[in-house]
Amino acid sequence: MLFNPLLNETDKQWKPIIKALETVVGKDGVIRRKEELLTYECDGLTSYRQRPALVVLPRTTEQVAATVKICHDYQIPWVARGAGTGLSGGALPVENCVLIVTARMQQILSIDLENQRVIVQPGIINNWVTQAVSGAGFYYAPDPSSQIICSIGGNVAENSGGVHCLKYGVTTNHVLGLKLVIPDGSIVDVGGSLPEMPGYDLTGLFVGSEGTLGIATEITLKILKTPEAICVLLADFMSLEAAGQSVTDIISSGIIPAGMEIMDNFCIRAVEDTVKTGCYPKDAEAILLVELDGLQVEVDANKQRVTQICRQNGAREITSANDLETRLKLWKGRKAAFAAAGNISPNYFVQDGVIPRTKLAEVLEKINKLGEEHGYKIANVFHAGDGNLHPLILYDNAIPGAWEEVEELGGEILKLCVNMGGSLSGEHGIGSDKNCYMPYMFNEIDLETMQWVRKVFNPDNLANPGKLFPTPRTCGEAANAKIEQFKGVELY
Amino acid sequence: MLFNPLLNETDKQWKPIIKALETVVGKDGVIRRKEELLTYECDGLTSYRQRPALVVLPRTTEQVAATVKICHDYQIPWVARGAGTGLSGGALPVENCVLIVTARMQQILSIDLENQRVIVQPGIINNWVTQAVSGAGFYYAPDPSSQIICSIGGNVAENSGGVHCLKYGVTTNHVLGLKLVIPDGSIVDVGGSLPEMPGYDLTGLFVGSEGTLGIATEITLKILKTPEAICVLLADFMSLEAAGQSVTDIISSGIIPAGMEIMDNFCIRAVEDTVKTGCYPKDAEAILLVELDGLQVEVDANKQRVTQICRQNGAREITSANDLETRLKLWKGRKAAFAAAGNISPNYFVQDGVIPRTKLAEVLEKINKLGEEHGYKIANVFHAGDGNLHPLILYDNAIPGAWEEVEELGGEILKLCVNMGGSLSGEHGIGSDKNCYMPYMFNEIDLETMQWVRKVFNPDNLANPGKLFPTPRTCGEAANAKIEQFKGVELY
Repeated sequence: MLFNPLLNETDKQWKPIIKALETVVGKDGVIRRKEELLTYECDGLTSYRQRPALVVLPRTTEQVAATVKICHDYQIPWVARGAGTGLSGGALPVENCVLIVTARMQQILSIDLENQRVIVQPGIINNWVTQAVSGAGFYYAPDPSSQIICSIGGNVAENSGGVHCLKYGVTTNHVLGLKLVIPDGSIVDVGGSLPEMPGYDLTGLFVGSEGTLGIATEITLKILKTPEAICVLLADFMSLEAAGQSVTDIISSGIIPAGMEIMDNFCIRAVEDTVKTGCYPKDAEAILLVELDGLQVEVDANKQRVTQICRQNGAREITSANDLETRLKLWKGRKAAFAAAGNISPNYFVQDGVIPRTKLAEVLEKINKLGEEHGYKIANVFHAGDGNLHPLILYDNAIPGAWEEVEELGGEILKLCVNMGGSLSGEHGIGSDKNCYMPYMFNEIDLETMQWVRKVFNPDNLANPGKLFPTPRTCGEAANAKIEQFKGVELY
Repeated sequence: MLFNPLLNETDKQWKPIIKALETVVGKDGVIRRKEELLTYECDGLTSYRQRPALVVLPRTTEQVAATVKICHDYQIPWVARGAGTGLSGGALPVENCVLIVTARMQQILSIDLENQRVIVQPGIINNWVTQAVSGAGFYYAPDPSSQIICSIGGNVAENSGGVHCLKYGVTTNHVLGLKLVIPDGSIVDVGGSLPEMPGYDLTGLFVGSEGTLGIATEITLKILKTPEAICVLLADFMSLEAAGQSVTDIISSGIIPAGMEIMDNFCIRAVEDTVKTGCYPKDAEAILLVELDGLQVEVDANKQRVTQICRQNGAREITSANDLETRLKLWKGRKAAFAAAGNISPNYFVQDGVIPRTKLAEVLEKINKLGEEHGYKIANVFHAGDGNLHPLILYDNAIPGAWEEVEELGGEILKLCVNMGGSLSGEHGIGSDKNCYMPYMFNEIDLETMQWVRKVFNPDNLANPGKLFPTPRTCGEAANAKIEQFKGVELY
């Protein structure tokens, strides 16, 4: 009983599908009223909108499997969604799709402190994992800026990073095993509770696959011991180059800070005007935040060395904080950078690209030049230690054509990153936003190889179609096609 | 022009194949004399032998691709082989196969110290990577015991570990990108020079795939800064349990040593009788080796804490070494453990299993009991920090039926590991030795999912057939079929 995935908006054929889904998740587990569906029209990348045909809210692996099986049987495209905070449109619905939302899958299924692992459902909020184990002296390392609202399932899909990923690695380094529902509705276990598992590393393959291979319903995470001591240093510089050189020198000296972030003057001013930390000197061309962790003696020794390196590179003032309260104060501005951008500009677009760390100064200069050429102001805030840039392009969506121009500028920045030996994404994923740039990074056979793998799990392309991989359409066309897609999907 | 992969031994049909291969790699690049092929009949797991039809020695990616293409066109099975030091029969030839040996692919293609990465050909010896960069203050972390003879290509295939993998992770954590030749002869690039790459993590998928997905011809490795200070501690205990408890306590205290190894009394005596280090007390029930690295202050502080923990657990004597010479002396016995086993017994079989670290004492007792039940002495040496056991079963191959009994005992040990929540392999791979145990660890659908992925790359099963995955034959049958397979393959 297969029929076209693009069901007619008012098609009566939806009726048995809804009935079947309600049998699985209950009547309150299926959302289909237009006004209730509004919430689900976009993820953190708000420029694109698409209403799903309906939303399903399962609670268990079995309910997810049954839901996916129904989609498979009726050949309906489906998209998995966690907290909807993604920044590349990975959880953006596609036309007439079933959106499987994990908001009711928020259980911690097991905590094994001795072996330092926890098993969680995908809907659990990133920060809750740390909260659940911090009393016993543990924490979960990957910490996206959105960690108080983003879900672990979404982190797995996008292989999310965060400020502490310099030292501890991104999500994939912290996932030991997964229970998956693959697009035919089967339940598959990959990996396990140990890092050493024989056979193909399908866990690693799945993490970062952006919902195109299936949906994770149980996630085994590694947790780490809370370090004995933490120290945050804030140094301010009169040039971005000096801040960048300090980063290179710190890494070259053999120190691996827990995190190392740079903000430029424009960003500093935006942040200070918004959250008024009082710590970020508004006349500085750049500030460098360095977090050191480990044993007290180690942190003390590294603090001395980092201070010395920053001074040698002309740092004006260096503030440091050991206690939690002061540390949070120093971090506050960095954590509020995106919000601050929203405060000084009607709209902003966060780009996410990676470059070799050694090319920081050169690339930042080129990015600012690109901004000038295109007539847009760009604020720069980035994970300097791993060369992961987050240029914030400020614009006004009310100006016709602005978004298209911003998207083009964002693309130019990405191409620059790739040309400099870098990558299209550090931690936000490709989603529907950057898939058209994949051919800049991978040749045809490399992309084809990925598609072969996709087809193994997702042969009918029902799971998150149109994401991650380039579609035949060019970028401009894709953007035009996607913008303002407010086609109402009225059921009955 | 396809014909049966199992060509007749004297089949004239080999002639055009040899001619084609010689055109690719030169006359001296194809080995086909019976006496010259002897070297290639087994890998480090010497219990199984199988002569290949011929050996090909390519020098470049293009030569590998052309060789694989010829195998594909003639539907001949092929096996990739590095230095042949593997311990699970991963590089064991299959009947009438072409063995592609990477011994002539030993170039370091690029060294980028600033970005801490090197690109190497697969035939390069593990230790050479560190030698190439140590002058500049860097090293390559994964260090199998065989590191002075094993190749990086083999390390990639088996996802090799080593004593330093407790802190730094196994091979997969140090491979950034690969140039691959897949079984249809295509050249594919996966990953890159940065850890953050969008799309599916095919690099991670390939590492540890044991030659069943293709052959890596260029490998981009991450190198690390040599730590400022290194200290090795050797503590001896009057019970294995006390040594195991010390390991648990050290990890629980938040210290992650670079390495943490335990040897039991039998192993200690074997080692002292063989290499006479003078450091391993022969009456101790267990010795614990702990390597600490980092800043001098950090190492000093951790040394104090480790010493205290060992004392609390009843350590008799604790020796420490800071300088290279003394450190090597303390390590010498551990590094010579396998050789020592060979010295006190005509033959030995190294098993490789993983258990949750917290179950060390319990499992070791059970392993020794299994040995007693089966009438074989087992020496225990293991990466205690990550629960990776290496029981050495001592036996005499001259006694008829001994190997079969040892293989059965080895299997019992593996099943025990899995039953205790562990894994079939920590670092030696599955190969042809343990593939029959895969169903103990994975259910049918999990294994089927891996097979789907295998088929994407290797649809005709020409690349390393019969490895990694269970064949329909039972273990006993497989073993009998494989032992003493000295069927001469005479060409012409």
